[in-house]
Amino acid sequence: VIPDRLRRLIQLLSRLPGVGEKTAQRYALYLVTEASGLAADLAVELAELGKRLGTCERCGNLAEVRDDGSVVCEICLDRRRDPALLCIVGRVQDLFAVERSGAMRGRYFVLGRLLSPLDGIGPEDLPLDRLRARVRADGVKEVIVATPPSVDGEATALWLARELGREGVAVSRIASGVPHGGDLEFSDQITLGRAISGRRNIDTPR
Amino acid sequence: VIPDRLRRLIQLLSRLPGVGEKTAQRYALYLVTEASGLAADLAVELAELGKRLGTCERCGNLAEVRDDGSVVCEICLDRRRDPALLCIVGRVQDLFAVERSGAMRGRYFVLGRLLSPLDGIGPEDLPLDRLRARVRADGVKEVIVATPPSVDGEATALWLARELGREGVAVSRIASGVPHGGDLEFSDQITLGRAISGRRNIDTPR
Repeated sequence: VIPDRLRRLIQLLSRLPGVGEKTAQRYALYLVTEASGLAADLAVELAELGKRLGTCERCGNLAEVRDDGSVVCEICLDRRRDPALLCIVGRVQDLFAVERSGAMRGRYFVLGRLLSPLDGIGPEDLPLDRLRARVRADGVKEVIVATPPSVDGEATALWLARELGREGVAVSRIASGVPHGGDLEFSDQITLGRAISGRRNIDTPR
Repeated sequence: VIPDRLRRLIQLLSRLPGVGEKTAQRYALYLVTEASGLAADLAVELAELGKRLGTCERCGNLAEVRDDGSVVCEICLDRRRDPALLCIVGRVQDLFAVERSGAMRGRYFVLGRLLSPLDGIGPEDLPLDRLRARVRADGVKEVIVATPPSVDGEATALWLARELGREGVAVSRIASGVPHGGDLEFSDQITLGRAISGRRNIDTPR
């Protein structure tokens, strides 16, 4: 009973992350029946997306393509950022998350993927040459590896520490533990184990 | 740190039903970074939507626009459907839901909205003339009102029963009660009250 054209739209929308058949149908029907203009606006924006948005040539962050075709992101252009401090993330999403924390005063490098033996992704699939070039060009002294605390994230962090350590760069890893506001009772054992092994001294005034 | 163009896309996506800022950002980043082609395909589909998809002139269901500009849906064209039985729904979504149940062998009429005194929607805002014309043209003998069991849905059902009763049409309302697989313990009191007042005799073989 659903027209073919609507079915195609539903099928496309269901490819969005975490969107199932039912949610896709809800979005599609909303776009068709209720939100006048939204479908057209989205169509324009999505069509322009590929042309106007690219990845920063220096770090892999998202940035608008300039008239001369070059792409350099705001962070790489920001002179107040410390060029000697580099934060390595797996995905652009993670870069945004670190930025939101306001705790990073250096620049970034987006790997694009993590080492994953199970998925057949080895060191040769990661942009180590570009990363090394960046480290040398900017005179990076410290690297903070902000890959996620997963098996792949840990493996990638260890590999990066070894590779970049050879370049004479100090490599650290973001802390893993019980999240702010989190409950010990409901923390899984790996998280709690990490929280304990990563414990920090509390300096008390004497 | 998020480029303007991406921010605009996020803002548009967050207008979808049930989508907040975070989910919109997730969709947008997926469209930008991972799903090559999906953004372009969606752009085309959404741009075509308004041109190729319309509402059925007879019942208000969604249907593809034909080459001559007319729009008549599959259900209205289906000769196996009983023309004397008409199911009235509030929205196209509800029509799809009733169709999925497989329990409706007649045709439909989509009101587009429900009576809602609080939102200032009165009888003059509902397409009664079109509905009456449909009832007469098709020789409808029975109408099943499938508006939702909400205050507005009930008010609309009562109003329809009165207006269509004058036409000599039998008007019934879909049952309201504890859903299939539902738990009495977790049913609200209105649902349980309706389940009890709408009880049905069980015919036992003697």
